[in-house]
Amino acid sequence: MSSTRDIDKLIEMMARLPGLGPRSARRAVLQMIRKRGQLLSPLAEQMAKVAATARECLNCGNIGTEDICDICRSEKRATGEICVVQDVSDLWAMERGAVFGGRYHVLGGTLSALDDIGPEDIRIPQLVARIENEQISEVILALNATVDGQTTAHYIADQLDGRVRITSLAQGVPIGGELDYLDDGTISAALKARRSI
Amino acid sequence: MSSTRDIDKLIEMMARLPGLGPRSARRAVLQMIRKRGQLLSPLAEQMAKVAATARECLNCGNIGTEDICDICRSEKRATGEICVVQDVSDLWAMERGAVFGGRYHVLGGTLSALDDIGPEDIRIPQLVARIENEQISEVILALNATVDGQTTAHYIADQLDGRVRITSLAQGVPIGGELDYLDDGTISAALKARRSI
Repeated sequence: MSSTRDIDKLIEMMARLPGLGPRSARRAVLQMIRKRGQLLSPLAEQMAKVAATARECLNCGNIGTEDICDICRSEKRATGEICVVQDVSDLWAMERGAVFGGRYHVLGGTLSALDDIGPEDIRIPQLVARIENEQISEVILALNATVDGQTTAHYIADQLDGRVRITSLAQGVPIGGELDYLDDGTISAALKARRSI
Repeated sequence: MSSTRDIDKLIEMMARLPGLGPRSARRAVLQMIRKRGQLLSPLAEQMAKVAATARECLNCGNIGTEDICDICRSEKRATGEICVVQDVSDLWAMERGAVFGGRYHVLGGTLSALDDIGPEDIRIPQLVARIENEQISEVILALNATVDGQTTAHYIADQLDGRVRITSLAQGVPIGGELDYLDDGTISAALKARRSI
């Protein structure tokens, strides 16, 4: 089917996106073709625009459309606090919460002996440099509660020890969480960190 | 956040595709931006290409990149049989099976008194005209086994009665199906249509 090759190719490309498979890519492409005026053409233009302008912030590693991202440039953000996250998606998750008023540092990964990922690969030297240059008083380690995430958090804490206050996100029962469905590690962490009320 | 507005807008547009929501759109966009050279730019180009060329076949309603689609133009397809399907996705599903060698007619919907969809809205007059013009010997109704699908099948069968052989897909136990998980209607249909072995 030579002339539908372009459509097949589009389906194949869409199917490579995370969260989409061949079936959902087919549905999405069909829907886009049906509404090509409102959906396909504008989406193509928007993608081309983002492809041309998106880049990593030279300071923190966030994704934006300038060399220095909005958060780093904003005068409304507190300058003394840096929140260290693994990925841009984590930064976005923190921003949705809208409770942190400082700036970020995106590592872009975690230390991993297995995958041969060392401190230089995940922007840790840049973080150390920022602590020295930006008069930082507190570093909040908001890394995932996984083995790799916590290994990385400990490594960073060691590197910065004595130079700055280092904190991490509290561990415990999530809002709406039912004890019956929580793993033992979470319950044990929540019990250890119990508070008087 | 003015300069990330383009990225936010792209996420919002992706989230409108079927099968994607805000969360998966964010993941997909982040992945595309990370691999913008291999993923975002080619995808944008491919979408623009498809948006410019995709159209409905004037004969059968299939989607392709020419006025008459590959299947209608192909000399390898039998000319005497038309398989009537509800949607292009159904046509694609039939083609994946690769057992039907004739041509198609895509209705683009089903009759529905509730939604005020009549025969003219779903290309039934075009189907009747094709029966007369293309020397069709058999019409296979491959419509969904839903109330609307079967109502439409009966309507078409009435319209074409006496002019052409009309068949429909067999109903029964799907390959790999377990009786325990099948609905009563399917079991009853399979029993009525039982065969000697």
